[in-house]
Amino acid sequence: MISGKTTLIAHIGFPTESFKAPMIYNPWFDKHGIDAAVIPMGVRPEDFATSLKAIFRMSNVRGALVTMPHKVVANSLVDEITPTARIAGASNAILLRPDGTLLGDQFDGAGFVRGIERKGLRLAGKRVLVSGNGGVGSAIAASLAAAGVAQMALYDGHVASSQALAARLREHYPQLEIGTGSNDPAGFDLIVNATPLGMKEGDPLPFDMSRVAPTTFVGEVVMKQEMTPLLLAAQARGCPFQLGTDMLFEMIPAYLEFFGFGTATPEELREVAQLRY
Amino acid sequence: MISGKTTLIAHIGFPTESFKAPMIYNPWFDKHGIDAAVIPMGVRPEDFATSLKAIFRMSNVRGALVTMPHKVVANSLVDEITPTARIAGASNAILLRPDGTLLGDQFDGAGFVRGIERKGLRLAGKRVLVSGNGGVGSAIAASLAAAGVAQMALYDGHVASSQALAARLREHYPQLEIGTGSNDPAGFDLIVNATPLGMKEGDPLPFDMSRVAPTTFVGEVVMKQEMTPLLLAAQARGCPFQLGTDMLFEMIPAYLEFFGFGTATPEELREVAQLRY
Repeated sequence: MISGKTTLIAHIGFPTESFKAPMIYNPWFDKHGIDAAVIPMGVRPEDFATSLKAIFRMSNVRGALVTMPHKVVANSLVDEITPTARIAGASNAILLRPDGTLLGDQFDGAGFVRGIERKGLRLAGKRVLVSGNGGVGSAIAASLAAAGVAQMALYDGHVASSQALAARLREHYPQLEIGTGSNDPAGFDLIVNATPLGMKEGDPLPFDMSRVAPTTFVGEVVMKQEMTPLLLAAQARGCPFQLGTDMLFEMIPAYLEFFGFGTATPEELREVAQLRY
Repeated sequence: MISGKTTLIAHIGFPTESFKAPMIYNPWFDKHGIDAAVIPMGVRPEDFATSLKAIFRMSNVRGALVTMPHKVVANSLVDEITPTARIAGASNAILLRPDGTLLGDQFDGAGFVRGIERKGLRLAGKRVLVSGNGGVGSAIAASLAAAGVAQMALYDGHVASSQALAARLREHYPQLEIGTGSNDPAGFDLIVNATPLGMKEGDPLPFDMSRVAPTTFVGEVVMKQEMTPLLLAAQARGCPFQLGTDMLFEMIPAYLEFFGFGTATPEELREVAQLRY
């Protein structure tokens, strides 16, 4: 039950319709008697800088979950970012610290990688393709690099995004083999859709699935439905795969801890979640 | 269950701790299957202009409930105000209209008067004292004048507030006898506490209760507890009285209609409300 004493976590993005976090965090807060709530706030790109400031001036806001299309810009609007957020080039969580300063951090990639490894794919030494090199794609790339993959292909409609991400990765992982410019999914152990393709009805698939081997693991970030067209195609070819929501449930414990609400297991979060599609 | 599709009504004020509206509106929305929620947003006076703009730029916000200390300033920050809001000198509800403009309106006074009359006090021809001539006091004064009281005493620690309110009232109600500058509660049919006295422990009573006749009706706007120190003193003297929350429950149907959510009865709202003190 929301009251004037409830601590708010602003869930900032645009559009808000496909947000899932409120239906996971809020039942979990209820279950544990924590007087806090995640509140969707639809902020358009042109308003983000002003609105972020206004939101954090609110006396009952402790933090923010930042999602598309603001994650990359968020890095430049906070007082400090963690090393992970720096490499990923994006923040998707912002904490208001007691001294009034804002700390940006980032758990997309950590959630994605934790989920993949719990499904049995050891990433060390593997070849991966990350399609979509914006906020979430960069975060996943950073975490895949940290997990020790050997080769990474980066693809984005905006070539500059891939090149900038490659440069940031090379600084921190000089031993990593990085290629840019091709979206051909043949020959990889893991391919990742980190584009918005699959959010809208009629979107093309992010990969040419006829080129994907049945042994290739397919990772998805879109969570508008659990089984996106990409994942249905992966399933049809017999590929192992990870749902967009798996990444979400794997990363939430890290966010809860970041905001100071204790921690949870992905299983417990799945159980309390009230997702509607 | 709040989701990214939920329509938000921002409940703007500072501090937020004593807000009651979320625990009334939200259970009512739930009961009727309306996907909307009232969300407290703690906005300090110096941030109000900027924050109000930012809040109404959010894609999932339809309106705002505006409370202390912003109601008076709100009138100057919207595109249009209703006649009631103009006379009251304050808006406590703001609607985002389809054309993007903001309409300010005001139902405090209407709620207060409706409650008093439902308790059997016919206001036409009566003598009333309104102590506290800020947003809520002005609104109540405007509605008391509209209900036909004959004499009205206005008192406020800031004398200019009383004088400005008196001037606005005289414009619209030239026949009304208005006095300012005295808080003596002797000789009135109705005395109204529209100051914040009673919000904080140890506040003095807003009136010298030894001067209040047992036939005088005592109206309260503070709703931090139902029985404020003023109402306990009124009860001890045998005065009829009205709770702060009565004003609240009487005005909510008007707000629901203003925001386009249909209507409700005060009784139904009392029944679903989950107030905690």
